[in-house]
Amino acid sequence: MFEYINNGSFTSAKGFKSAGIFCGIKRKRKDLALLYSEKDCTAAGTFTLNKVKAAPLLVSQSVITQNQKVNAILINSGNANACTGEKGYRDALCMQKYCAEKLKLENEKVLIASTGVIGQEMPMDKIYSGVDNIVPLLSENDKLDAAEAIMTTDKRSKSFGLKISHKGKEINVGAICKGSGMIMPNMATMLAFISTDAEIEKGLLQNILSETVDKTFNKISVDGDTSTNDMVLILANGESKIKVEADTELYSEFKDALLDICKKMATSIISDGEGATKLVTIEVLNADTKINADLIGKSVANSMLVKTALYGADANWGRIISAAGRSGAEFDPTKCSISFNNLPVIEPGYKLVVDEVKASEILSQSEFSIKIDLASGLESTTWWTCDLTEEYVRINADYRT
Amino acid sequence: MFEYINNGSFTSAKGFKSAGIFCGIKRKRKDLALLYSEKDCTAAGTFTLNKVKAAPLLVSQSVITQNQKVNAILINSGNANACTGEKGYRDALCMQKYCAEKLKLENEKVLIASTGVIGQEMPMDKIYSGVDNIVPLLSENDKLDAAEAIMTTDKRSKSFGLKISHKGKEINVGAICKGSGMIMPNMATMLAFISTDAEIEKGLLQNILSETVDKTFNKISVDGDTSTNDMVLILANGESKIKVEADTELYSEFKDALLDICKKMATSIISDGEGATKLVTIEVLNADTKINADLIGKSVANSMLVKTALYGADANWGRIISAAGRSGAEFDPTKCSISFNNLPVIEPGYKLVVDEVKASEILSQSEFSIKIDLASGLESTTWWTCDLTEEYVRINADYRT
Repeated sequence: MFEYINNGSFTSAKGFKSAGIFCGIKRKRKDLALLYSEKDCTAAGTFTLNKVKAAPLLVSQSVITQNQKVNAILINSGNANACTGEKGYRDALCMQKYCAEKLKLENEKVLIASTGVIGQEMPMDKIYSGVDNIVPLLSENDKLDAAEAIMTTDKRSKSFGLKISHKGKEINVGAICKGSGMIMPNMATMLAFISTDAEIEKGLLQNILSETVDKTFNKISVDGDTSTNDMVLILANGESKIKVEADTELYSEFKDALLDICKKMATSIISDGEGATKLVTIEVLNADTKINADLIGKSVANSMLVKTALYGADANWGRIISAAGRSGAEFDPTKCSISFNNLPVIEPGYKLVVDEVKASEILSQSEFSIKIDLASGLESTTWWTCDLTEEYVRINADYRT
Repeated sequence: MFEYINNGSFTSAKGFKSAGIFCGIKRKRKDLALLYSEKDCTAAGTFTLNKVKAAPLLVSQSVITQNQKVNAILINSGNANACTGEKGYRDALCMQKYCAEKLKLENEKVLIASTGVIGQEMPMDKIYSGVDNIVPLLSENDKLDAAEAIMTTDKRSKSFGLKISHKGKEINVGAICKGSGMIMPNMATMLAFISTDAEIEKGLLQNILSETVDKTFNKISVDGDTSTNDMVLILANGESKIKVEADTELYSEFKDALLDICKKMATSIISDGEGATKLVTIEVLNADTKINADLIGKSVANSMLVKTALYGADANWGRIISAAGRSGAEFDPTKCSISFNNLPVIEPGYKLVVDEVKASEILSQSEFSIKIDLASGLESTTWWTCDLTEEYVRINADYRT
């Protein structure tokens, strides 16, 4: 049993503080966030599969793979510190070290993340003075500052919190994330930071996170690009004094709650995709294998022709079936049915049954689902995508990421 | 030795006739083309790899795989006859049969192709009356009509012709094609029809065509979508009385000429991509394997973020290296150099050497190249792409394909 908290954020879990400030990397908006727990945290993370990995990501990945406790995450926006060579790597280590000193921690207890322009040197003086300024501002009451400070082309800040009630006790989960362009499976330009006051062993936390990310953040597509910097991190500080152990009822509840908050984050990223006006759920049903289901989901979610048709509210099932056809999945297209929400569009044998007026009504909404039923087996998957608009092109022709 | 012919077209090869008319499938523009050789032709073809294959494509593929001579290709635009079930397949056979009767040929001597909207029944009465009207118009002098009649969202018709001089004799090659949206490797929504008066054995012709298509039409990307209908067909009627045989000097010349005319067609399709304003050549150099080179070429050519940066004339090498990084290719990004035309942008270790003013000048041109040197081996590849513009979105949000 879990329920969302009003104005939830990273600080929704007990014992976590955060802050967000402007330190001068961007022109005007907030660009430095700090997340902190005084109590040592178990940490887990998932990282971009892009061959080109940003320096801060390498630093944090190395912390996570070593089995140690952490207390803080320092994040800057406006500069990705990616493709910055050895100098960039040294800068990332300095960023970690400087923050650790100010927090009176060992270096390895600080995780770092960056997002923004690739290939530019990090303005370290701004990071240093920023860290000086942000540490005193850490607060259990921060709801918005940290979430705002990690934004790039996001239009809205994204933060969530929920409460799991278990036998009269409570576990809390908090989360902030940023997304926007370059979103696609395998950790696109997106950062997500999750806090929980549950007590949980590291290996178990990593397993739950990996599985959850695979069902949520790895199933979303704004434009099919993945970035050099993306990661999801979770910190568990045990402040609730409730231990989550494998194969218990609480374990299932915790997993469900984490899946739900990650789904909320993933879909909020899609809704706020660059230029996006629609959040579209793609359900691939009754495939023979999970792999074929995902190949089709991914291909449809990433098809520029499908995405422009969604923008135009065009019930263009031909583009959907064609995108499925080129996915590399083995399936029999003549067995497919497609529906929009619960409105049948085509039935097997390409039998056209759509009511165009009703279809167009559905496709004009800001949220709807496309169901592709392959009638070939028992495997299903869910992907999320957004429409492709002129605004997307304008943003990305102008903005240097 | 070959040279292009002014106003070349399918009829540039001796003994070939063509015609193009309006038969009523589209609202106003020409929508039916007929290509013809009185003399029997050896034929070869390559076909879409999309799982969803249009009915006319299945009919033509079956003709090509059986080892028989053909005399004609009938093509309509405005309706793809794809995802039209058994009725669609019967319609395709009827289209072939009706045309064969009018030309006094066996059914199997006629190839057919369709392009246009998916999932709508073919208006067969219009095809029949169209065939009645088009047969008498077949002419050796048709330069434009057939090329215009196969267009969909193309802005310009595309036709070429060349002459191979060999020991005082001549072989001619003619070609028409259409492209526009949904262009991507493995035969996107594009049709190309090539004629030659060379005499050549079928197996050899198929090998040359497959190899050529792989280096040209399969290396272009407008939007990463592939369609249900795409094919490249070549007819050789032997009218020149010159035989092209394997491993001769003439064989090499013929192959070179065919490669060149297919490259011309492929790049003309890219230049005329939906909303495109720029033709960009992507050269991936010194990869360890051909597969890695192509993975990187494909990923960069298809990246929406790269394509919007090209539109904005933004020297955004970070997006290029990031697209390479997510391609699945094994390579060491720190060894990469990137240049625009011959202007160095980055050198190994992400060393930034670009002159931004000059880079922006190059990226503002309508044609330029991006070179990605991996410094890891001896394999190279060339891809072609175009920029992604607001106009692309407008065309595809409005037009139902």
